[in-house]
Amino acid sequence: MRSLFACLALALGALTMTACGEPGTASDRDAAETERPRYALAIHGGAGVIERGSLDAATEAAYRSALEEALAAGERILDQGGSAVDAVIAAIVVMEDSELFNAGRGAVLTHEGTVELDASLMRGEDLDAGAVAGVTRVRHPILAARAVMERSPHVLLAGVGADRFAAEMDLELMDNSWFRTDRRRQQLERALEEDRVRLDHDDGDNLGTVGAVALDADGNLAAGTSTGGMTNKRWGRVGDSPLIGAGTFASNASCAVSATGHGEYFIRRTVAREVCALMEHAGLDLASAARRVVHEQLLPMGGSGGVIAVDHRGNVALEMNTPGMYRASVRAGEEPLVAIYGR
Amino acid sequence: MRSLFACLALALGALTMTACGEPGTASDRDAAETERPRYALAIHGGAGVIERGSLDAATEAAYRSALEEALAAGERILDQGGSAVDAVIAAIVVMEDSELFNAGRGAVLTHEGTVELDASLMRGEDLDAGAVAGVTRVRHPILAARAVMERSPHVLLAGVGADRFAAEMDLELMDNSWFRTDRRRQQLERALEEDRVRLDHDDGDNLGTVGAVALDADGNLAAGTSTGGMTNKRWGRVGDSPLIGAGTFASNASCAVSATGHGEYFIRRTVAREVCALMEHAGLDLASAARRVVHEQLLPMGGSGGVIAVDHRGNVALEMNTPGMYRASVRAGEEPLVAIYGR
Repeated sequence: MRSLFACLALALGALTMTACGEPGTASDRDAAETERPRYALAIHGGAGVIERGSLDAATEAAYRSALEEALAAGERILDQGGSAVDAVIAAIVVMEDSELFNAGRGAVLTHEGTVELDASLMRGEDLDAGAVAGVTRVRHPILAARAVMERSPHVLLAGVGADRFAAEMDLELMDNSWFRTDRRRQQLERALEEDRVRLDHDDGDNLGTVGAVALDADGNLAAGTSTGGMTNKRWGRVGDSPLIGAGTFASNASCAVSATGHGEYFIRRTVAREVCALMEHAGLDLASAARRVVHEQLLPMGGSGGVIAVDHRGNVALEMNTPGMYRASVRAGEEPLVAIYGR
Repeated sequence: MRSLFACLALALGALTMTACGEPGTASDRDAAETERPRYALAIHGGAGVIERGSLDAATEAAYRSALEEALAAGERILDQGGSAVDAVIAAIVVMEDSELFNAGRGAVLTHEGTVELDASLMRGEDLDAGAVAGVTRVRHPILAARAVMERSPHVLLAGVGADRFAAEMDLELMDNSWFRTDRRRQQLERALEEDRVRLDHDDGDNLGTVGAVALDADGNLAAGTSTGGMTNKRWGRVGDSPLIGAGTFASNASCAVSATGHGEYFIRRTVAREVCALMEHAGLDLASAARRVVHEQLLPMGGSGGVIAVDHRGNVALEMNTPGMYRASVRAGEEPLVAIYGR
């Protein structure tokens, strides 16, 4: 019976929905034109066991400052009328360069002590997308994802081939040792001693995958995600971050989503696409869709983590089932929000 | 207005649906218990430009015979009360060993003249899944996908790491040259001369990605897919076949799907998941969901290909937007269907 009521609720929700149809159709955007902010942007720096009081004041201030800097880099572009894709990339590039986050320099180390980076990017206007998995030399993996989207016929490139593609595209390359920090070496040593694969937050180091979602003045959505994956990962493990539909999804028909958490569960639940699918097919609003996926689908399986999302009306959702998530958001004409701990 | 009518239709569809809720709930299965066949199985060997009359009689007979053999291998297991996962694997193993299909031995060649294989597997009961991308030595990539699902904490392993994992799991390994056939060498030479990436069907060689979906006597669903990708692929290109949600998806709450076609479009549309999501969230039946994805979502983008699917009631859908798709299906107590060309 419970299932029948849920079906009825879904069906009634669908009767009131406005976000139905194909991406980019004018009717969707017109419906929301009056109330929509000129732009909206949200970013995350990972979700995990970040208990209030677990960070000292200096560390907490450093995270807040890095999140503010990344948010400002993206907002500057949106405020000048730039595209959602450019804003997402600008915010992620700042976090990839920061050693605080598990992306670009300062990413976690594999079982072999190297860095293998994943990133993906999606554009809501035409559902175009690009991604790389397991690159070892690209300073900004999110720029490699963009190059795959714009300058190749493919969506996903992996391993040495992806590094070679980045070199052919003249992207900035670094030696793999440049990405490695002492903090990550110590983290790997502890993981090797305990012989287990760690999520980047499991051991209290509280550093995570980064991502950004944006709505621009033209009404276009975009989403991007970048990560080093799991400490002590082996066998060429690929998580959800470079996978369209799992870690990243964007469609102008509904929303843009970037996810962070225990990637295997996010793949099995096609988390980023599922938030958008619940809007498109079941008529849920953004907040309800994000809550359902994070708390009702992921949590019962043991899938810890969260999502950030922005919809075609400029609504923002920052949802997690973990004690904390590094996150920030801003909408045109409003004060930015920067937060670390849960509600 | 058209979009509004579509929304209303979706909502009304939802009122009549029975497949709502989480995978594996007893209520879903009980509702269909009376009409459900004891088992159902469908397989494909790829979709593409397979015009009637383009195959000579001997070639056509060889394909029909290979499809019959693969179908029989899967059906034998289901008839004896075996699991959907075992049936899917049995059917795919036969096609991986056949040189006729673009999977396992006889797979297409990369730009470098080597074989790189992808496969994925998903179980509808608990949404568990496993996949490998870019393996070069595993005789049966679908068995490597199963090992990832059952014997690792991960869902997707890629590249040399995935080969190493398969070796540690004692799977059968072959030298890369064992996979290469003269026919594929000639196909690559033609592609290199024309300097383009070919889908495995673009040049009339009419050989394709393989997949299988099954419903077993316990009411559990499973889906699997295996491929060599695109002739002349470069830069470690990964298509939809090893990606959960794109090439493969299964949930007891709705259906099991395996896709074949121009992988980039299938990734961007999260095709396999989308068929199931339209059943779960919009109340469509299996045939309508498959038709909508293949004809209304993929075709307008230029995404040629098809899907095979079976739902939790034992309905089977074999849908394509190409002139042909190698396919076969059977339900308990019914005659098997084997087909190549479109309707």
